[in-house]
Amino acid sequence: MSGFDAVEVIAAKRDGLQLTAEQIDWVIDAYTSGEIAEEQMSALAMAIFFRGLDGAELSRWTTAMIDSGIRMDFSSLSRPTADKHSTGGVGDKITLPLAPIVAACGVAVPQLSGRGLGHTGGTLDKLEAIPGWRADLSGEAMMRQLEEVGAVICAAGSDLAPADKKLYALRDVTSTVEAIPLIASSIMSKKIAEGTGSLVLDVKVGSGAFMKTRDRAEELARTMVALGTDAGVRTVALLTDMETPLGRTAGNAVEVAESVEVLAGGGPEDVVELTLALAREMVAGAGVDADPAEALASGRAMDVWRSMISAQGGDPEADLPTAKHSEQITADTDGVLTRLDALGVGLAAWRLGAGRARKEDPVQAAAGVEWHVRPGDAVRAGQVLFTLHTDEAERIERAKESLAGAWEIGAQAGQTSPVVIDRIAAE
Amino acid sequence: MSGFDAVEVIAAKRDGLQLTAEQIDWVIDAYTSGEIAEEQMSALAMAIFFRGLDGAELSRWTTAMIDSGIRMDFSSLSRPTADKHSTGGVGDKITLPLAPIVAACGVAVPQLSGRGLGHTGGTLDKLEAIPGWRADLSGEAMMRQLEEVGAVICAAGSDLAPADKKLYALRDVTSTVEAIPLIASSIMSKKIAEGTGSLVLDVKVGSGAFMKTRDRAEELARTMVALGTDAGVRTVALLTDMETPLGRTAGNAVEVAESVEVLAGGGPEDVVELTLALAREMVAGAGVDADPAEALASGRAMDVWRSMISAQGGDPEADLPTAKHSEQITADTDGVLTRLDALGVGLAAWRLGAGRARKEDPVQAAAGVEWHVRPGDAVRAGQVLFTLHTDEAERIERAKESLAGAWEIGAQAGQTSPVVIDRIAAE
Repeated sequence: MSGFDAVEVIAAKRDGLQLTAEQIDWVIDAYTSGEIAEEQMSALAMAIFFRGLDGAELSRWTTAMIDSGIRMDFSSLSRPTADKHSTGGVGDKITLPLAPIVAACGVAVPQLSGRGLGHTGGTLDKLEAIPGWRADLSGEAMMRQLEEVGAVICAAGSDLAPADKKLYALRDVTSTVEAIPLIASSIMSKKIAEGTGSLVLDVKVGSGAFMKTRDRAEELARTMVALGTDAGVRTVALLTDMETPLGRTAGNAVEVAESVEVLAGGGPEDVVELTLALAREMVAGAGVDADPAEALASGRAMDVWRSMISAQGGDPEADLPTAKHSEQITADTDGVLTRLDALGVGLAAWRLGAGRARKEDPVQAAAGVEWHVRPGDAVRAGQVLFTLHTDEAERIERAKESLAGAWEIGAQAGQTSPVVIDRIAAE
Repeated sequence: MSGFDAVEVIAAKRDGLQLTAEQIDWVIDAYTSGEIAEEQMSALAMAIFFRGLDGAELSRWTTAMIDSGIRMDFSSLSRPTADKHSTGGVGDKITLPLAPIVAACGVAVPQLSGRGLGHTGGTLDKLEAIPGWRADLSGEAMMRQLEEVGAVICAAGSDLAPADKKLYALRDVTSTVEAIPLIASSIMSKKIAEGTGSLVLDVKVGSGAFMKTRDRAEELARTMVALGTDAGVRTVALLTDMETPLGRTAGNAVEVAESVEVLAGGGPEDVVELTLALAREMVAGAGVDADPAEALASGRAMDVWRSMISAQGGDPEADLPTAKHSEQITADTDGVLTRLDALGVGLAAWRLGAGRARKEDPVQAAAGVEWHVRPGDAVRAGQVLFTLHTDEAERIERAKESLAGAWEIGAQAGQTSPVVIDRIAAE
């Protein structure tokens, strides 16, 4: 493919023209090969931020990103596949209980995940808190585990949508992450390349989410559902609350422990509710008639969890690491917790060492935040509200600063948002 | 200077915020030093294309670009200085007769010029058609020539606004040339760094100009006049027509010959008119009471021309190079020339070898286009309208294609635009 000029393509988008299919194919191909320079692609990305991509452009852009790498194929499995993607939130450990529950319903769950960056945690970082557990699997090992165990959570290979990998790194340093078409095509190119038959999107909205407003979250959700549907993947999105963090923990080992509680039949109500809501969509999307609540209650989901962790070298019975330093924060007055801000909690966990500022940074398995109350709970002066965990005591001060404005005690409970705000399916 | 983050600065401009003086200083400094990557600067430039820079931002941006290099100082000269900048057009040889005329009025004219790129020619390329003439002068030689001859046309050193040099090269490949604040600051940073006391801007508007519409040209002119005035340079802009090419020639040697005709008291009417209009502004801006028309008519301007060419190694009496191949285009019908399109003529000259596609390309001294009629002139079938000159015969076909749609013969003359459309001074 050739005959195009990057300068002209950038100018066309800058001036509000629709890019042709051939231009888009060329842009993605030439960028992946290095023919289009980074500074040209960032200018194009910024032009897309302002001008957008229409449905036809976006669909082609996404396909071109998929075609920059391999497509996985799960058609040889004996069961249908379902996948989930979350746009990222604080305390979002949902993948951990979800994959085993859905697998226990007879659906294969190939969950290719990433590591965390910034204040939202990464699923692989959390699971790596389990002694021995490995994120990297060969394609063959992944297929075998899917057939035998039914669920895999592992690292995505670099051969899936390499154009997206390159473009994402560029967007990250050029303030062009925020363009909805680029977000949607980045997520969906990877998910479609992963070869799932059905997909549920957990699009988070609120202070701790990437999408701060319901309008933006809904626009992203609709855009992604349309892209998935166009590509032949049964796709549904749930809009879910991320004003308040999920559950009672944010970090790595602490979130694994909370997930195991859920699988054991307990755990925080909101985590259980969201996990089952997503599980029902995945099971229905896969065309399987089974009840996720029953798979959870029966203990079969816990059995899958144990097999899944063991299959990847982890010891499901091992003690999880504990932090060298902990500190408690107590209530200064009686009342009701009226607000618990997801962003503040996420930043605190990040500053304690649970997350990374740059992708080459290490994370601490035991770092994180536990909150012992949720909005609506009555509190007494002196009661412990938060426990902070870290291996490096000097991190505690800045984490406390992040938490300082993140909670409020009032006279009476305010209104709380439901966990699942809306459901968006193909039109 | 530090403490800023390129990603945050880009996001601020992207989101329509005003950049602070400190942010702007840091951006230009960090870009010049390489701390801000090319892909970050191109994203910022595209954000500026969409969001603009307000007066305060633009003034600071321009100052920061000036401060990236040296400022020239002509205060030791015995006469005041005046400079001219043209935004570039087809057949725009005005600098050649203008500098000697203004110098003959007692004003020193330090005219730092560039080479051509694309369909508009470069002043240095034209002068290099004169056997022996050299564009590169030391600072010392330049000062001596200004004192002794009064006029210098030479290459700008790389130590003037190096940030602009780097940014211009980046904008060229990322479709971010067209942003008015970036155009204005690019031109004005160089002109202010050149240390002139007064400046006249020739802002061209029309098909052969960078600014195609009067509104855009006027916006650019006002922006530049404000920047110059802020910086203490007496600055005036003339908006001039570039729908029709200037004079009767576009190329290198052919434009030198036309300029010498003007200095000898002849030459095309429009070239004489524009040259004198700009000369009057420069002389007035320098605070000198002298009449450019008299300096021209008396032959003193021609004397300065000869001294100026000789001082830079050129032979003002030498024959100019002639092309190996020439071809004529004749009228196919009787009538009046109703239109002569500057862009078409400029592209033809460029394709004949007078200009370059890339900055490392050579140019042909003898290549170019002569037109023997101007809009409003009566023509007869068979009359020669154009003569094309080139050293490479195979260039003629494509040049003729560029010319094909560039002229029209009608029954009666249409309305022609005056050369000088408007004058814009500080408010």
